[in-house]
Amino acid sequence: MSKHTAMSWFFNERPKDVFTKQTLALREHTLTDLLDGQFRIQTHYLSLDATNRVWVSDWDIYMDPVRIGEPMRGFVVGKVTESRNAKFPVGSFASGMASWSNQVIGDEASFAPFPAQDDLGQAFAVSSIAGPTAHVGLHHIGELQDNETIVVSGAAGAVGLMVCQMAKRKGCRVVGIAGSKQKCEMLTDEFGVDVAINYKSQEVAEALGDACPDGIDLCFENVGGKILDASLAHMRDFGRVVVCGLISSYTAREPVPGPYMFRNIIMRRLSMRGFVILDHTDLMPSVQADLEEWMRAGDIRLPLHVVDGLENAVDAVNLLFTGGNTGKVLVRVA
Amino acid sequence: MSKHTAMSWFFNERPKDVFTKQTLALREHTLTDLLDGQFRIQTHYLSLDATNRVWVSDWDIYMDPVRIGEPMRGFVVGKVTESRNAKFPVGSFASGMASWSNQVIGDEASFAPFPAQDDLGQAFAVSSIAGPTAHVGLHHIGELQDNETIVVSGAAGAVGLMVCQMAKRKGCRVVGIAGSKQKCEMLTDEFGVDVAINYKSQEVAEALGDACPDGIDLCFENVGGKILDASLAHMRDFGRVVVCGLISSYTAREPVPGPYMFRNIIMRRLSMRGFVILDHTDLMPSVQADLEEWMRAGDIRLPLHVVDGLENAVDAVNLLFTGGNTGKVLVRVA
Repeated sequence: MSKHTAMSWFFNERPKDVFTKQTLALREHTLTDLLDGQFRIQTHYLSLDATNRVWVSDWDIYMDPVRIGEPMRGFVVGKVTESRNAKFPVGSFASGMASWSNQVIGDEASFAPFPAQDDLGQAFAVSSIAGPTAHVGLHHIGELQDNETIVVSGAAGAVGLMVCQMAKRKGCRVVGIAGSKQKCEMLTDEFGVDVAINYKSQEVAEALGDACPDGIDLCFENVGGKILDASLAHMRDFGRVVVCGLISSYTAREPVPGPYMFRNIIMRRLSMRGFVILDHTDLMPSVQADLEEWMRAGDIRLPLHVVDGLENAVDAVNLLFTGGNTGKVLVRVA
Repeated sequence: MSKHTAMSWFFNERPKDVFTKQTLALREHTLTDLLDGQFRIQTHYLSLDATNRVWVSDWDIYMDPVRIGEPMRGFVVGKVTESRNAKFPVGSFASGMASWSNQVIGDEASFAPFPAQDDLGQAFAVSSIAGPTAHVGLHHIGELQDNETIVVSGAAGAVGLMVCQMAKRKGCRVVGIAGSKQKCEMLTDEFGVDVAINYKSQEVAEALGDACPDGIDLCFENVGGKILDASLAHMRDFGRVVVCGLISSYTAREPVPGPYMFRNIIMRRLSMRGFVILDHTDLMPSVQADLEEWMRAGDIRLPLHVVDGLENAVDAVNLLFTGGNTGKVLVRVA
């Protein structure tokens, strides 16, 4: 392969539920020469995120969807190998939204310099999506206060784990919901979560009632469906629900109803807010400074679920929908 | 009947959907002598409100429910006929939460003086529940801005009509959803609503798309279910949903799912807030001052749906669930 060709995944056919071999197709294609301001990046890691599935849905979403025939999009980090932009010199690292490719062309609109790190995967996992999403959702949207009781669904996923650790920093009582005994043990034994509930073996609403006898101040929702319903049943008066993700509906073939306990928005006088991290670029300087400080202090980290090889990206993203991952799913490309 | 007996409706049997003849029973009973600070009120009007149904449900609601055997509760206005409280002299009027009775004993905790009015029913209808609920929901919870696009469900009900008129005061584009041709014509012809949608004859989501080509800034929700779903499909990015009532679910025999378009809380980055007017007593002085000013200016008024006779209170409250009312349902007791 010449330096002017790349391997990329292209959107081929709209999935009915999870990604299949028909959804995306891996193809070699030619890359153009660089224009002024552009640079070429050798992809090191591709981040897989639940919201990737939303981008190939037929929903009216929060940004331009990926259209059939276009390269699949994702967050990547990599090394600059050729540059016509002085802010992104050859040999430096950059991260941003690009295609699922081994080589991409970037510009200042879609990429930011990424500081070189001993553990590039860890730094990328924390600071690219999961860390900012958790930080903005918890502090800016959810206005988390010290010592509150917070419930986190999808707690063993990348965002969930970030949320759990950030809430523990504030002295909160943290209840995590996850899908296996192993994940639950990891949450309590390695991440200081106060109570972990296994939604596959426990009745979640009942377990939440036991875990939060005084009710829930803040629900950080990554899952939706029955899991959200269980939390809604135990919210305190004037509690807040931060809706970060609804992964249980992303691969559903039939329309998924909203929570049956929706009436508690009145009965408990709740506020519910949805958010998308891409709206909050203005907060990123202070968010990234916090994340760096907390990483250095050992307060936050992510277990990585690294899948080797761009050709395995589809299997990797599906881990998110089958619960096959613990922590951050990355594809190591280079 | 001596002055120390009263006729009151008592909660007899939990309803399955609407109120029936078994739900409440009208009985004569003895009233105690007044204690210091109390006063006796001859009820003039009883307000019927959708939330009355919630009070006799088996839900965990926003206040103590009415228990079987207890008098049914509601908002009333009446004349003081005997008093041991100087703030409520004989001959003055008072309003507050009491039982569905022709005569009640009040105190300062549950009653406030009500200024004598030429049209007591109109003043009570506007200022007791519907006006404050609309005012607080629209301005304090919903933070309505001048010239926004607002959708109001249950628009021909008491709260809905108040919301429509208050939003017109702020130069908003107001789209009302109601359940008959007559109600829709009243909304547009008499209350200045820009577009009225008849949910019984029109496809609401489609009609909302036509009525709000730039999307909805604020949804003032009184109904829930499919009606809320239709609005959620047309919210603007960062729009607000004020959840005031979910009347479509109050008489449902089976659990009612939340909105199928719940995902738009993320896709459109919405905030949704539920509220109950009883939490906002601190705002009442300024709210009542506004309501009086707006009534005097002719900016707000309510068509009254007056049912005569305490014995017809059950039929009156059911009007709310069958859509049989236009505007405020009152029972004229005295």
